[in-house]
Amino acid sequence: MNDASRYLRQAIELARANVEAGGRPFGAVVVNNGEVIASAVNEMHLSHDVTDHAELLAIRAAARIHGPEALEGSAVYASGHPCPMCLAAMRLAGVGTVAFAYSNEDGAPFNLSTADIYAELKRPFAEQSMAISHMPVERESGQSLYEQWVRARDGRR
Amino acid sequence: MNDASRYLRQAIELARANVEAGGRPFGAVVVNNGEVIASAVNEMHLSHDVTDHAELLAIRAAARIHGPEALEGSAVYASGHPCPMCLAAMRLAGVGTVAFAYSNEDGAPFNLSTADIYAELKRPFAEQSMAISHMPVERESGQSLYEQWVRARDGRR
Repeated sequence: MNDASRYLRQAIELARANVEAGGRPFGAVVVNNGEVIASAVNEMHLSHDVTDHAELLAIRAAARIHGPEALEGSAVYASGHPCPMCLAAMRLAGVGTVAFAYSNEDGAPFNLSTADIYAELKRPFAEQSMAISHMPVERESGQSLYEQWVRARDGRR
Repeated sequence: MNDASRYLRQAIELARANVEAGGRPFGAVVVNNGEVIASAVNEMHLSHDVTDHAELLAIRAAARIHGPEALEGSAVYASGHPCPMCLAAMRLAGVGTVAFAYSNEDGAPFNLSTADIYAELKRPFAEQSMAISHMPVERESGQSLYEQWVRARDGRR
């Protein structure tokens, strides 16, 4: 069995144990330089927070335990197709490689697919189900928020 | 000043205070039924976790304090253009309305735009900078992970 298969099976084992514990069927491991640096399961059954996905929690744990550098170029192995939130989190964190075992197609019959959310988030803001608006309430009123940030940052240097 | 402007200014005030405290210029408030149910600022300067965005933390706080129902149909007011991770988190949580004051265009000169991440995540997996692969390691090997979940769930009913 190659390394990728081994880590994927580890993510699936976490997911299966989570199911036995009353949770949802998702697990993830983060690997860097051949070592598992963090792992997590979906914790929605505990926190009732819909953002408590295995991949997001694994990334957050890796950053806290090892610092953000440990995520640069790391690999995430997820039991299921990562949702857009988790995929974007991986991209923000500099994850280099992502593999998943169960696809959105596998999940669809069980209502475990996020394909519709992917499709929606690809649409322009005006066509999404959420009403998303840009309201520049501070335009033309002194120092912009971002200018304030740059000056504060440069002042600390 | 209408309600939306007021909440946006509140998010901006949080962002400005975060800048003064050494953080990044982002704040967010979650409103439901005319009440602020949670708020947060970007905490990357404290945690060094790149997923500690104001909007994600505000949603996580709202879910923990008030339960997931409180987010259904809620409104998120963010000082800056939400990134794809936060936008997907809002979508997962059932947020109904999103408004932001500073756009990605405003942020671009300060390297505070996530427009490139939006563009990348809209591409097919094969064309993204992360290597994303589907490896069905458990195909044809007994009860699928998702079947196990359905049976466990139905067994508890």
